[in-house]
Amino acid sequence: MTAHPATQSIDPETLIAGLAREGRAAQRQLAAMSSDARAHALTLAAQRLRDDSAAILAANAKDLEAGRENGLSPAMLDRLALDEDRLSSIAAGVEAVANLPDPVGEVIGSDERPNGLKLSRVRVPIGTIGIIYESRPNVTADAAALCVRAGNAALLRGGSEAVHSNHAILAALTAGLEAGGVPGAAVQLIPTQDRAAVGAMLTAAGLIDMIVPRGGKSLVARVQSDARVPVLAHLDGINHTYVHAAADPAMAKEIALNAKLRRTGICGAMETLLIDAGFTEARDLVTALIEAGCELRGDERIQALDERVTLASANDWDTEYLDAVLSVAMVDGMDQALAHIARHSSAHTDVIITSDDAAAEQFLIEVDSAIVMHNASSQFADGGEFGLGAEIGIATGRLHARGPVALEGLTTYKWLVRGSGQARP
Amino acid sequence: MTAHPATQSIDPETLIAGLAREGRAAQRQLAAMSSDARAHALTLAAQRLRDDSAAILAANAKDLEAGRENGLSPAMLDRLALDEDRLSSIAAGVEAVANLPDPVGEVIGSDERPNGLKLSRVRVPIGTIGIIYESRPNVTADAAALCVRAGNAALLRGGSEAVHSNHAILAALTAGLEAGGVPGAAVQLIPTQDRAAVGAMLTAAGLIDMIVPRGGKSLVARVQSDARVPVLAHLDGINHTYVHAAADPAMAKEIALNAKLRRTGICGAMETLLIDAGFTEARDLVTALIEAGCELRGDERIQALDERVTLASANDWDTEYLDAVLSVAMVDGMDQALAHIARHSSAHTDVIITSDDAAAEQFLIEVDSAIVMHNASSQFADGGEFGLGAEIGIATGRLHARGPVALEGLTTYKWLVRGSGQARP
Repeated sequence: MTAHPATQSIDPETLIAGLAREGRAAQRQLAAMSSDARAHALTLAAQRLRDDSAAILAANAKDLEAGRENGLSPAMLDRLALDEDRLSSIAAGVEAVANLPDPVGEVIGSDERPNGLKLSRVRVPIGTIGIIYESRPNVTADAAALCVRAGNAALLRGGSEAVHSNHAILAALTAGLEAGGVPGAAVQLIPTQDRAAVGAMLTAAGLIDMIVPRGGKSLVARVQSDARVPVLAHLDGINHTYVHAAADPAMAKEIALNAKLRRTGICGAMETLLIDAGFTEARDLVTALIEAGCELRGDERIQALDERVTLASANDWDTEYLDAVLSVAMVDGMDQALAHIARHSSAHTDVIITSDDAAAEQFLIEVDSAIVMHNASSQFADGGEFGLGAEIGIATGRLHARGPVALEGLTTYKWLVRGSGQARP
Repeated sequence: MTAHPATQSIDPETLIAGLAREGRAAQRQLAAMSSDARAHALTLAAQRLRDDSAAILAANAKDLEAGRENGLSPAMLDRLALDEDRLSSIAAGVEAVANLPDPVGEVIGSDERPNGLKLSRVRVPIGTIGIIYESRPNVTADAAALCVRAGNAALLRGGSEAVHSNHAILAALTAGLEAGGVPGAAVQLIPTQDRAAVGAMLTAAGLIDMIVPRGGKSLVARVQSDARVPVLAHLDGINHTYVHAAADPAMAKEIALNAKLRRTGICGAMETLLIDAGFTEARDLVTALIEAGCELRGDERIQALDERVTLASANDWDTEYLDAVLSVAMVDGMDQALAHIARHSSAHTDVIITSDDAAAEQFLIEVDSAIVMHNASSQFADGGEFGLGAEIGIATGRLHARGPVALEGLTTYKWLVRGSGQARP
């Protein structure tokens, strides 16, 4: 199931254009299927992932062996590794997506004009979605399932370290989907690890309708900088939690510890804590974070609270640590908190902790991020936690979709106009 | 009101970045105003456009004089020319936008999670909108009004031929807006006609949130090709009308004549007519179009109906004439019509004329264009006709907004999460 040697000699633009055209043709058939038929095909694909577990785990073992030879870090090997449990949860994820309500066909507005024209807007698939990802082979199944559920073709470009796993997962998925009547080309894996193929995807305007990068910051930065196709992504999660003067101290401590330390490597983790000068339990909060194992980099007023706080550099306020490290600033009231966030937030998730409802509403209105929370941990910034069932990614751009993006974000709409012979005066 | 000489010596990137930062700061104030306050400021701006008509018309006279000296075509001079009537309708347009319902703050979905988190999505302004346009000075007022109504800053780049008119209109608008409490920098005109300033706008990712080009195909093509900022636009309106076998002949004739000839220069005009081989009144339809003054370029079967039809070249099926010229093909049934449209449509507006409701529904579902119509003229493809009050443009891209785009398309949303101390397990 690795790339056919012939594909290696085609230039990347021609390769991508050919795959995209096959995907487009398959997408039209997919879009013409009923929602139930798409869902059923996905349940068959999930079953096939379970049935083919031996082949998938054997392919994964090859990737792991190559990874060890190539000196991948233990963390990368862990991201790459599959076992029966992980594979079973990948299959369950595909089934869960099959059971999500289908946004395609939903009427999102209708109107009748004085001249009798009946207008409606109806959700339709976007078309062909390019997914560019790194070492986690589960993305192959997760992303493909979301695309297919909403009637889209998926063009997948996984990382070279997971090439055997990805091909084996795709083979199982495709076999299940085809058994359910979905054309095989609805989900395709780019059959080369040539980096130029990524460049060709990024510039395939008109052939690929949207690109979703899934991976580290350097991947996302490259995609955002080079893409001529619209990109749905977030580069950073520089998330702030503002402990307002009227915050409940116990709640502030619990949420801050959770937001920073529950999992430090996810994009919803808190990276900067803003403590109001009027919050009387600041010292206790700072000490609790340090004693929970977090390194604190603070301004001078925060340093004065605990000698273990190091002095933050200017750069720290714009850094996503993804680790047990936290920037902490003291602010003099709401306006200073809002100004700090406006300047340094990556517009992912920002939080206020307060018992003052008016302050909370001001914060919710004025902070211009994809997700703004009151009295909750930023680690809830996740499609599953938001009830979306799954997510293709989290977006911090301003157009199309923001925050956790799931099926609805994989659709667009068209206008339907039903007349009875109207000519325009 | 022409550019200060000092601005000419600043490099374009620095100039645009400075204006965009001023716009961003103004936009934050604008977004914090109430909807009524923004509407009131727009009514003051409309009044000021009327009050300052002498100054605006004097500025316009300078542009017209320069235009005549520079040999502008009569059509271009007409697009440029203002008089009391036109200015009055520009002011009325600004008032109409002031009175449109405000999408900002609208809740577009809410949910309560089992853990008690209350989620909602709320419409917010996009931010800073760049408008790049050509000779029509009315765009200065129309586009600015739509942006301001939805809480956005507007960065306007008009054509050099309208420079005095644009500055005079902007001066009146800004005076009215400021009297209503809107910061002057909410609407800015790029103070140089240096073409490099357009390039700097197109690459100002993070500073400008969306670009809307308003003008001819070469302008739109340049913007689409060079922009790193998301673009809302349509390049072409290659719109098809399919006269199905079961079309009412009188309705087909009336709609075809209207769709092609009511106004030939608008993007909603029909450019290709597909006549089903089963439609018995094809000859009458073809003859009626020719006798109404339309040049017909057809395939051989269409030529056989009337000797005045010339033979269409392969290129004709992909041509937007914007003139009294029409491509006409005969098709053998729905599938061939759908295939022709899938291949040649620019995804703007496609129409079926039929009395067969099942055929109509198939066409509405399967044609993947921004607007799909049944028994109506494609010339209705317009924000005003769709009841949107006004439009910033018509979009044929697949993300964010499609078809006529008005206030809603100038907003995005954010997620609000209201908790009571939840930490993520």
